[in-house]
Amino acid sequence: MIMETLSTNKAHGGVQGVYRHQSTATGTPMTFSVYVPPHDEGARLPVLWYLSGLTCTQANVTEKGEYRAACAEHGVIFIAPDTSPRGDGVADDDAYDMGQGAGFYVDATEEPWKPHFQMARYIEDELPALIAAEFPMADMGRQSITGHSMGGHGALTIGLRNQGRFRSISAFAPIVAPLECPWGEKALTGYLGPDKADWRAYDACALIADGARADELLVDQGDADNFLTEQLKPDLLRAACDAASIPLTLRMHAGYDHSYYFISTFMADHIAWHAARF
Amino acid sequence: MIMETLSTNKAHGGVQGVYRHQSTATGTPMTFSVYVPPHDEGARLPVLWYLSGLTCTQANVTEKGEYRAACAEHGVIFIAPDTSPRGDGVADDDAYDMGQGAGFYVDATEEPWKPHFQMARYIEDELPALIAAEFPMADMGRQSITGHSMGGHGALTIGLRNQGRFRSISAFAPIVAPLECPWGEKALTGYLGPDKADWRAYDACALIADGARADELLVDQGDADNFLTEQLKPDLLRAACDAASIPLTLRMHAGYDHSYYFISTFMADHIAWHAARF
Repeated sequence: MIMETLSTNKAHGGVQGVYRHQSTATGTPMTFSVYVPPHDEGARLPVLWYLSGLTCTQANVTEKGEYRAACAEHGVIFIAPDTSPRGDGVADDDAYDMGQGAGFYVDATEEPWKPHFQMARYIEDELPALIAAEFPMADMGRQSITGHSMGGHGALTIGLRNQGRFRSISAFAPIVAPLECPWGEKALTGYLGPDKADWRAYDACALIADGARADELLVDQGDADNFLTEQLKPDLLRAACDAASIPLTLRMHAGYDHSYYFISTFMADHIAWHAARF
Repeated sequence: MIMETLSTNKAHGGVQGVYRHQSTATGTPMTFSVYVPPHDEGARLPVLWYLSGLTCTQANVTEKGEYRAACAEHGVIFIAPDTSPRGDGVADDDAYDMGQGAGFYVDATEEPWKPHFQMARYIEDELPALIAAEFPMADMGRQSITGHSMGGHGALTIGLRNQGRFRSISAFAPIVAPLECPWGEKALTGYLGPDKADWRAYDACALIADGARADELLVDQGDADNFLTEQLKPDLLRAACDAASIPLTLRMHAGYDHSYYFISTFMADHIAWHAARF
């Protein structure tokens, strides 16, 4: 595995880097960002994964996420992958919610997506191995995961499918049940085909109903979010967690929307929450 | 004066807005952003002006500046104007350091710039009057000013030319002496003509040499800034302040560059510094 450094900038005492590598999982170059906070020589630091939402690249949260001050305070490495494979030879769709920028953190089984849209194993296997190899200060025994919207779905489902790997799981305005919303119906039909039994591994509520467990979950949600009632449906996660006795802290925030203005407001809270659980 | 609201988003308990109005000074529509932190009904809040650098609009600091948490903590309104007039009918230059996006906070006297490039009186007179009229919680008796690079030049020169209006003046990696650097030579020749006597009102070091005073100044500067030695030259400000007995806190920061990663690292410090002086 070879990693190319696209940029590094000193920030809040640490280094914000942007990197690219040729992914085996997706068969494409993949870009991601890593913030390494200030630390003592030889220290090993916990890792927080942040998965982004529809239309995003690694750049959105890197520029707008306001995470570096809190990561520096708590000594946490912050990793932001891209949301899909990209490039001229990669299948795409004119819609913002399918194809490039909308990988939904699944391993596609349907054409034309199957050759490149292998984001689950990219995020779960390939990128962690690269991080472990290239960032020796990253303590891969202490990982946690979060994300926003489609990336909140990614964080919840990857966390629930890999019980024990992540010390803690949180999300900002996540899609909690792709089986039950238009974004999920469209994307999972496209990537996985019409058999909804195949979708359940990529639906947080279905995973919980089918037996997946977490020690606890933290979700923040704005009540002025345009996608709240049709797409996000946090009440479904509340019901799934209640039925499975998973402690869910679901915080509804008056007046907040779906944007990075919402995410950045509560980012430091999430980092502190994860840091307390490493 | 009529102000149009382009967007508002709740953030860190307050409201981040982006607004547009038809400017009399520039003869164009001008866009700016205002963050109003959470506050009690009827409270009046101090105002921090932030002037941006070359190529920027109001959006760069609004997205990347990481100022909202500190403004919410200290109860400070944050205003980010654009850096020049813009539009099809406005003079421009293909270079990034002249014309649209590069107004240099001067009132141009030369063609083709004179009709629209009236940024000094726009920032000093017209926009404050609009803010006072449209944001009744803004206490215009408590203002301070900061900025980055060309905007640091703007903050220093506007602050020095309007002694008594601003409680405090700071800057991030400012151009301290346009008379002594290529950016300044080019821009001031273009906007003001070849007589350097006309430039002195727009040069912080020259203003101080000519008698302008401030109670104190705060400047942060990265030592890995590509523009440090050729364009920014903080030593010239040090010499000017020393000669005039103006207390200058000039902090050089190892490894920091000219980007928003640098600005955002020290933004909260500046806001706290200004807040202590309101």
